[in-house]
Amino acid sequence: MKFVRYGADGAEKPGILDAQGGLRDLSGVVGDLAGDVLADLPRVDPETLPLVEGNPRLGVPVGGIGKLVAIGLNFSDHAAELNAEPPEMPIVFLKANSAINGPFDPVILPRSSKKADWEVELGIVIGKRTKYVTEAEAMDHVAGFTIVNDVSEREFQLEMGGQWTKGKSCDTFAPIGPWLVTPDEVGDVHNLAMSLEVNGTAMQTGNTSYMIFNVPQIISHLSQIMTLHPGDVIATGTPPGVGMGHKPQKFLKEGDIMEARIERLGAQRQEIQRDA
Amino acid sequence: MKFVRYGADGAEKPGILDAQGGLRDLSGVVGDLAGDVLADLPRVDPETLPLVEGNPRLGVPVGGIGKLVAIGLNFSDHAAELNAEPPEMPIVFLKANSAINGPFDPVILPRSSKKADWEVELGIVIGKRTKYVTEAEAMDHVAGFTIVNDVSEREFQLEMGGQWTKGKSCDTFAPIGPWLVTPDEVGDVHNLAMSLEVNGTAMQTGNTSYMIFNVPQIISHLSQIMTLHPGDVIATGTPPGVGMGHKPQKFLKEGDIMEARIERLGAQRQEIQRDA
Repeated sequence: MKFVRYGADGAEKPGILDAQGGLRDLSGVVGDLAGDVLADLPRVDPETLPLVEGNPRLGVPVGGIGKLVAIGLNFSDHAAELNAEPPEMPIVFLKANSAINGPFDPVILPRSSKKADWEVELGIVIGKRTKYVTEAEAMDHVAGFTIVNDVSEREFQLEMGGQWTKGKSCDTFAPIGPWLVTPDEVGDVHNLAMSLEVNGTAMQTGNTSYMIFNVPQIISHLSQIMTLHPGDVIATGTPPGVGMGHKPQKFLKEGDIMEARIERLGAQRQEIQRDA
Repeated sequence: MKFVRYGADGAEKPGILDAQGGLRDLSGVVGDLAGDVLADLPRVDPETLPLVEGNPRLGVPVGGIGKLVAIGLNFSDHAAELNAEPPEMPIVFLKANSAINGPFDPVILPRSSKKADWEVELGIVIGKRTKYVTEAEAMDHVAGFTIVNDVSEREFQLEMGGQWTKGKSCDTFAPIGPWLVTPDEVGDVHNLAMSLEVNGTAMQTGNTSYMIFNVPQIISHLSQIMTLHPGDVIATGTPPGVGMGHKPQKFLKEGDIMEARIERLGAQRQEIQRDA
């Protein structure tokens, strides 16, 4: 099943895609794709639901995100492009909730940004309370998967004080979506092609098979440290091809179009703007 | 004015302290101390409100916290005890919202924790939307001040991968409260005595006058990077005396009683427990 949330920012309604990709209104079945609904997503035949007219905005496909956790340097080939040693344990950081952005909404550069960069990532959406789970148990706690673009301002991240937070938490720097895809429909989550294009030119290409720590390992590790709650999202690291890794380096500028794609999870697309 | 939220966890009601320290029910005036209420906290005479009987639990004095931002190494004397250079810009990190804890609720060590430590900090509660503000404008965006204990697991923070997040985001590791004190009642926020005791023995003593970056500088700096929203909380760094800085090092163990105090902001107190 492919779930979406559609409508104006802050007033999204739940929806589901039918076999033809048509948008169906799920609001008669659940109030939102959030909280405990994520533990037991409705199994309905989309064809029985009202077709939504027009072409509404798609929002973040999960509501009430409690925290957005991210894993750093989790692709062996990405670590290599940055001349970084592959980590022995998952590197964990947080992106501010205020950075969360719809999958097709503009990404807005802060006034002083000069080095904004892209990172297409597989996103895990947690379905139920997760604490001290084993790797074997972990997949049972997943509501579904989506795309997260871990947009990163490299000067803010690396040249303005010891932690990565400043570069990871700018407003709009966490586009999530377009779909929340259930695990049964994703199939093997550890063999999905990933790509990111800027203005139609491929920048990142990769595959989730290159993840150093896989989905169950990440969930189990995090759950030893903190409780993961329904609606928490985990961005699992990015493949090679970030702007910082190019020679010469490439960064986002106003008017650029950024498109992130993961096999079976669709594509998200943003125009780059700059804060007035 | 000293505002509180009282009652069972997740069902807190707003309250206010009267001149005798009695708890008055504010729920007839505002629904919660959250969101836009923080921009214009009610100016009422507490004596006109119903006295609350008994001795209810006090919760976090601000509801709907969107993000909990923290500043690292922000006291010159604390940086010295860790043999760290004073930072040239504020060091910024995030604590997970799932770590937020009431001011008198137990602090619960993760099963594998061996190096849990304390950090008494001045907490800023943001009152209204804050983006690109100058230092001169910053104080106008503050709803009030409170105490944050930035509890930190040093092995998780420093020995388990490159970012501090793991040590800062364990469940219960962010006690906040007891009161939200309005700026007029705090007076000079840059001259407040701070202390933290474990089992009645002073561990930290300090004063906000030793902050390297002061409250307006922190707010202005953050606002160049991300929007601060009403109910966001900023923990502004800790004075000397953390357990990691003692010789030999001292860490929290089950049964310890931890008490954090800041002049004019009251005191919070927790028993240390360990996850089953």
